Amino acid sequence: MRIGRHTWRFANQPVIIGTATVVGPEEGKGPLAADFDFIHEDLDLKEPSWEKAERKLLEQASQLAVVNANITQDDLDYFVGGDLMNQIISNSFAARGLGVPYIGVFGACSTSMEALALGSLLVDSGNANIVMSGTCSHNCSVEKQFRYPTEYGSQKPPTAQYTVTGAGVAIVGKKGKGPKVTAATIGKIVDLGIKDPFNMGAAMAPAAVDTIQTHLTDLKRSPAYYDMIVTGDLATVGYGIAKDLFKKHDINIQTSNYQDCGLMIYDMVKQKVDVQAGGSGAACSAVVTYGHILKRMREGELKKVLIVATGALLSPLSYQQGETIPCIAHAATIEMGGDES
Amino acid sequence: MRIGRHTWRFANQPVIIGTATVVGPEEGKGPLAADFDFIHEDLDLKEPSWEKAERKLLEQASQLAVVNANITQDDLDYFVGGDLMNQIISNSFAARGLGVPYIGVFGACSTSMEALALGSLLVDSGNANIVMSGTCSHNCSVEKQFRYPTEYGSQKPPTAQYTVTGAGVAIVGKKGKGPKVTAATIGKIVDLGIKDPFNMGAAMAPAAVDTIQTHLTDLKRSPAYYDMIVTGDLATVGYGIAKDLFKKHDINIQTSNYQDCGLMIYDMVKQKVDVQAGGSGAACSAVVTYGHILKRMREGELKKVLIVATGALLSPLSYQQGETIPCIAHAATIEMGGDES
Repeated sequence: MRIGRHTWRFANQPVIIGTATVVGPEEGKGPLAADFDFIHEDLDLKEPSWEKAERKLLEQASQLAVVNANITQDDLDYFVGGDLMNQIISNSFAARGLGVPYIGVFGACSTSMEALALGSLLVDSGNANIVMSGTCSHNCSVEKQFRYPTEYGSQKPPTAQYTVTGAGVAIVGKKGKGPKVTAATIGKIVDLGIKDPFNMGAAMAPAAVDTIQTHLTDLKRSPAYYDMIVTGDLATVGYGIAKDLFKKHDINIQTSNYQDCGLMIYDMVKQKVDVQAGGSGAACSAVVTYGHILKRMREGELKKVLIVATGALLSPLSYQQGETIPCIAHAATIEMGGDES
Repeated sequence: MRIGRHTWRFANQPVIIGTATVVGPEEGKGPLAADFDFIHEDLDLKEPSWEKAERKLLEQASQLAVVNANITQDDLDYFVGGDLMNQIISNSFAARGLGVPYIGVFGACSTSMEALALGSLLVDSGNANIVMSGTCSHNCSVEKQFRYPTEYGSQKPPTAQYTVTGAGVAIVGKKGKGPKVTAATIGKIVDLGIKDPFNMGAAMAPAAVDTIQTHLTDLKRSPAYYDMIVTGDLATVGYGIAKDLFKKHDINIQTSNYQDCGLMIYDMVKQKVDVQAGGSGAACSAVVTYGHILKRMREGELKKVLIVATGALLSPLSYQQGETIPCIAHAATIEMGGDES
């Protein structure tokens, strides 16, 4: 492939003018609890099904984001979103309530950055003034669809990850105060032959490293450009593999500057029995980025970050038919700049 | 909503430099048979599952499109695609084989124009030189997932539509000969409360009309600007409803200039017993547009067309939980211009 062509550089520097994060009870017990806008104490959100509960998470985050951005729903030009549910119903039904033109996307757990990249592209290219990008997942709807209903209480291996219950939404505008999206790298499928849906981190790590390498090469950057490089949801197993792959490919990332949303969202000592290898799900990178990381950026603690959301693009059916797991990672550069308004 | 903001105008006029269409046996019996690149005589494509057969359709169309565009796979900057399968596995697995950065999208049967719009945006905005946009569906994989396996032989009401077996791919380039994508309108969700998955045309017609109205208003155009306005897969029932809605909303579209891919692809007399109200599926608008309509444009018979792909964003689960069907339509303007190379 030609060098430099898979990263979009946003010359007009779209601004994240508002975000919102809504999470469930397990995430509310984790170390980032204070950074989320709303924590639900129960998993059902008083809805009659897990799927409706998941949709509600996104509807609430969308509404909160509009308020946090100090705009009205009518100011939104487009909504870009997707989720893990079959036919991304959580987003499509939430989009119905928003009433704005809707671009449905699917990137499994990489959806957060796929949606942010496309939203930023729309603003950067002058085709929109304000775009909402969002995603969500719910532990019970996702486990039910991809593995076993949580009510079964089936045992899981230690490589399994815990699907984050939550929704994260970012509103990207042409101008305003806040962190800017300055670039995005679109990943290609990487599939090293892993078939085990209880070991997603291992499957996704090579895709994350591939996208990071492409990103750095495309922009002729060293990893030191970033205060922090954060992968989406590799969790314990994938995080270790990613670090090994950085060494193997001579990508010089300091361990202190490399983190993973799947490890950040939970207390990996106190919550380990519940979350096994760590967090996953489309909401994982979304709530950690839009809740925690952007807060640290706004407070001046971080200036330049690269968020690398990772996705495992399997379906229960492709797995049952003996297929391996195709993985992907999409990355976005977020930077604090001067505060033009 | 503000007028004019939901249509992207592509000032750099991305060109469709190559297309390919691969279809199944029923489509091969229809009136457009001569316009398709490859017709399979059996539904299984010698694959062990319907899902693998569906994927193969897309893989073949992708490969043919690369040849037809007179490029190599390595020239592709991005692949934008989606399908009806859970987690859009047909596209994700096809993208694995292509090895290019991949933007997965979901718009049900509106995916064809969603993918073409995004691909054109990437080229128009200078973020890509060559993008492949594609989609596919297979009668047996889709019916199995959304309704009943065709092997059951369950009876269907006359409002039911027949999912097209096929794949349609367009390669959009910065320059070259061929029809140009000059604008695209992104639709919003329209849901008038229909719950019957055997009556998709009725559910989708209002979304199609909404997008056409937005498009014409945004560009201050009269329907007469177009030689032909074509909806995706409204079929008999939805086509009639759309015509009624045009009247109701004072949209002055001549019946002779308005067609529907779901009615064009089959012989609605000879094939009626098999296809009921007409064609549907993500491939329907893709193969009719990329096979038949673009051929007529290249031959000079049509100069300006508006393709309005329609999607019903339900899932089997949302239907089982008593939800109505959220619908959407995305439109793209395709025009023959001067033949710059």
